[in-house]
Amino acid sequence: MAQDLRSQELQHPMDVAEYLFRRLHQVGVESVHGVPGDYNLVALDYIPKAGLKWVGNCNELNAGYAADGYARVKGISALVTTFGVGELSAVNAIAGAYSEYVPIVHIVGYPSTLSQKNGALLHHTLGNGDFTVFARMSKEISCAVSMLNHQHEAAMLIDNAIRECILKSRPVYISLPSDMVQKKIDGDRLNTPLDLDYPPNEQEAEDYVVNVVLKYLHAAKNPVIVVDGCAIRHRALKETHDFVKKSGIPTFVAPMGKGAVDETLPNYGGVYAGDGSNAGVKDRVESADLVLSIGAIQSDFNTAGFTVRMSQMNTIDFHSYHVKVRYSEYPRVRMNGVLAKVTSKLGNLSIEAGPTPTNNIPHDEATSLEPTITHAWLWPRLGQWLQPNDIIITETGTSNFGIWETRFPAGVNAISQVLWGSIGYATGSCQGAALAAREKGIKRTILFTGDGSFQLTAQEVSTMLRNGLAPIIFVLCNNGYTIERLIHGMQDAYNDVQQWNYKELPAVFGAKDGTVLTYRVESKQALEQLFQNEEFSSGDTTKMRFVELVMPWDDAPAALKGVASAAAKTNSKVD
Amino acid sequence: MAQDLRSQELQHPMDVAEYLFRRLHQVGVESVHGVPGDYNLVALDYIPKAGLKWVGNCNELNAGYAADGYARVKGISALVTTFGVGELSAVNAIAGAYSEYVPIVHIVGYPSTLSQKNGALLHHTLGNGDFTVFARMSKEISCAVSMLNHQHEAAMLIDNAIRECILKSRPVYISLPSDMVQKKIDGDRLNTPLDLDYPPNEQEAEDYVVNVVLKYLHAAKNPVIVVDGCAIRHRALKETHDFVKKSGIPTFVAPMGKGAVDETLPNYGGVYAGDGSNAGVKDRVESADLVLSIGAIQSDFNTAGFTVRMSQMNTIDFHSYHVKVRYSEYPRVRMNGVLAKVTSKLGNLSIEAGPTPTNNIPHDEATSLEPTITHAWLWPRLGQWLQPNDIIITETGTSNFGIWETRFPAGVNAISQVLWGSIGYATGSCQGAALAAREKGIKRTILFTGDGSFQLTAQEVSTMLRNGLAPIIFVLCNNGYTIERLIHGMQDAYNDVQQWNYKELPAVFGAKDGTVLTYRVESKQALEQLFQNEEFSSGDTTKMRFVELVMPWDDAPAALKGVASAAAKTNSKVD
Repeated sequence: MAQDLRSQELQHPMDVAEYLFRRLHQVGVESVHGVPGDYNLVALDYIPKAGLKWVGNCNELNAGYAADGYARVKGISALVTTFGVGELSAVNAIAGAYSEYVPIVHIVGYPSTLSQKNGALLHHTLGNGDFTVFARMSKEISCAVSMLNHQHEAAMLIDNAIRECILKSRPVYISLPSDMVQKKIDGDRLNTPLDLDYPPNEQEAEDYVVNVVLKYLHAAKNPVIVVDGCAIRHRALKETHDFVKKSGIPTFVAPMGKGAVDETLPNYGGVYAGDGSNAGVKDRVESADLVLSIGAIQSDFNTAGFTVRMSQMNTIDFHSYHVKVRYSEYPRVRMNGVLAKVTSKLGNLSIEAGPTPTNNIPHDEATSLEPTITHAWLWPRLGQWLQPNDIIITETGTSNFGIWETRFPAGVNAISQVLWGSIGYATGSCQGAALAAREKGIKRTILFTGDGSFQLTAQEVSTMLRNGLAPIIFVLCNNGYTIERLIHGMQDAYNDVQQWNYKELPAVFGAKDGTVLTYRVESKQALEQLFQNEEFSSGDTTKMRFVELVMPWDDAPAALKGVASAAAKTNSKVD
Repeated sequence: MAQDLRSQELQHPMDVAEYLFRRLHQVGVESVHGVPGDYNLVALDYIPKAGLKWVGNCNELNAGYAADGYARVKGISALVTTFGVGELSAVNAIAGAYSEYVPIVHIVGYPSTLSQKNGALLHHTLGNGDFTVFARMSKEISCAVSMLNHQHEAAMLIDNAIRECILKSRPVYISLPSDMVQKKIDGDRLNTPLDLDYPPNEQEAEDYVVNVVLKYLHAAKNPVIVVDGCAIRHRALKETHDFVKKSGIPTFVAPMGKGAVDETLPNYGGVYAGDGSNAGVKDRVESADLVLSIGAIQSDFNTAGFTVRMSQMNTIDFHSYHVKVRYSEYPRVRMNGVLAKVTSKLGNLSIEAGPTPTNNIPHDEATSLEPTITHAWLWPRLGQWLQPNDIIITETGTSNFGIWETRFPAGVNAISQVLWGSIGYATGSCQGAALAAREKGIKRTILFTGDGSFQLTAQEVSTMLRNGLAPIIFVLCNNGYTIERLIHGMQDAYNDVQQWNYKELPAVFGAKDGTVLTYRVESKQALEQLFQNEEFSSGDTTKMRFVELVMPWDDAPAALKGVASAAAKTNSKVD
């Protein structure tokens, strides 16, 4: 009764669920990933009402991966699961997004507040009357948890969660109890857009840092720039681009920074990852007298097993929440403002050119008569085939190490999970990325995954078909978990997988006749032909293309071999 | 160095991993489920050394479900995952096992203790140097967490975890850092078997309770017994059987107790679940002057939406950790001892016969000329086809409600997840159950799942093939999530699923020619023929049998319709 009175006082009463989905629409979400469950069903009715599209994934982990891929293309995504069973299935995907700074709004359909209050013995509970346990678990991997248990604070909690999600670039958790879905709140609040700007740096502090940076920059004889994943994830790409372009300083990317820089720029120098670097890069970077490091994440896989060697005395670190010059730290000074100002005040710089990476096939491979597709041949060849603005997703394993050897056209968005490294991610992510690509008018979404990894989440190919998505999918058929083999158990059966007829899957998943092109490619020549096939390579086709790419079971990119050997050593190192 | 000296002092030094797997073997584990990952690879080498078999699932959630199914047949199971990515994927399965009292030893391959101490920025971490976060999450859904960070306590922690797992009948979590795998501990400790007996009740208290129970039992004019899930999960089946058989009291099962009682006994009366009970059962149970309730779990789905009506003044509750007579509670008195002693002292009882359930097809269905397979027809017909000692797994949805109308032959093990209710569970569980069945010499493992549910975990059919398992699989093809439709969104697109060619999947998953029989059954007559087909029905075949069972999209067992309507009401009830 109190509730009805209150809603009568509102100028434009709006149901909580409608408010939530309209806010998401305002910040760029156009499709919602997830799986229906009885505690979220009523909420799902509001998705079309708010102008959004429901994806309908096969399971929640895959939906979480898809939401991650979608967010890496569109800047944010939304995931709907049901209490307990649904949300816990998605936890690994959410943890990955937390680890790698991907903004996902995870909405969990909860039992009614009354059932919660009564500690009812409901399905999807642990049977102990505790309705907070799953939120506690998710708190560990979310930058905000908003429990919508009270009508009067629902709008505020929704707005805060979405804002935190974007500004911290990490997942947030919103509980939506079944009886809250239709409670009335103030719809007029939607007329005020959320403030999504980063709080500006304190000006005096920022100017101080800029001067320090410029001082070292002007003193340097052969500076380099190294761009890493946080430049992408914390939205410093524009400032980074302007700086790289205007300064002309030789610029490299760490593996997680792949795609952050226009690789057609004359001062783009390739991938720097210590011993796993592109040819000529290691010497150039490690002999620089100043490294401008933007958004570094120096994890084991991102540094080819901690083999990067950059003296802190020669390094300036630009981060989302601080800048560090040699050993001087400047907390709460965000890179964006500093980079922009440094760029505007550059002045004269001393610059020594760096290496120029190409997609030329290495001599041995180019002249080899062996028809087998090798990693050494594949990845530069792929670079010749890529087109501007392609989205390319590479699975943890041979693919996300192989891609280090591919030089991109302009505007390529490269998606992989170098830090979290959950196999199975790439196929789910591809579904979300391909959907986001369609919404943004991007033509080609390309997936490279391995047979072992593909098996974890294969059914998301069905979700792609259901949603009329037409990515280009390469499944590297090399009989198992090659990345694991290189770390331990080279020939052990536990690294084998069951042999599937992968390219038959789209048909089994209900692809309509003529909507999928399938291929099995076992030689370099066959792949050459495929790349030259206009129907296959076109970005205009509405047909999914699914390729079994047969490769030797024991071949791997050189960088992966080094990393795997380092990982094996780290695992066995004793105290 | 200290470590080497210590190992020299041991009579029979044994590596930690070998000790762990040998202990698991001692308590009945013969196969280990899981997925390889670099932090667990070295440990996997010890599985064959300890006489165990590695299953090799397609992903960790499925592996967790499979471990659950295996444990429900064998009494315990083991699951190996890798740190972060692997373990979190399995969390939903582990939570289900926690909720439903299923003992799973979850072994997580961890980064080395040195890396943990250094807070190294490794793959599969959140990037914040916190190596305890995932264990904290799992603590919420485990009855013990054993972190094997120190050699000297490893054996003790392993033993305690396995013992807790069995006695509490819930999952435990064991971290196994990569550098601990090969540390030497005392192998002689294995010569002392674990003490797995329940601590006996305090005798005076037990005798007191027994006398109280007997007093009420002798005074009763028409007592009934209702057996529920905890009688199975807390290992009171022998005592329950003896009591039911010797007393002759009309005995009913709650849905979660399905299979707990020999349903061929003359005093077996059917399923009691309030408004969802078998014909004649509700009146009989609710008019009893004494209800002996064994192992009750009165959750919404297990009581057909909280519709059971048994007065506490007429009820004696037997539980794993206490007995309750009317409103008098007797804590720390376990049901097993009490039931055994009550049975031995029964004396003369007043007994009124109860209903006798049959597998007769309801008259309307039997005489209908409509060829369509309906739920009202299917489940009793299934009962006629079942054989003694079959294992039957029914998915949350139409199947695990439909099975209420099936009267079992003796010895049937019925597996479903009535409380946790995670769709997708049944297919994974079937893999584990079928493997456990083979190890125990049980001939037939039968799965009933729906098309919507099957899509979540379909790839575990591949794991069945890889392991040479030959279950009988029925996929009910009714175009989506029928259980959700009945709760909300009867015709909404979010309850549809993509149409797959389900029976083609085994071939795509690499089934060898002639190892799988596939069928599509669209009429009662066709199913009759299938049931009469010896090759299909035989328990001796080594061939997987995969059936698409086509049913109307809007048909459901009567009990489910009632429960779904109750769930919708509960969801929308406001404070």
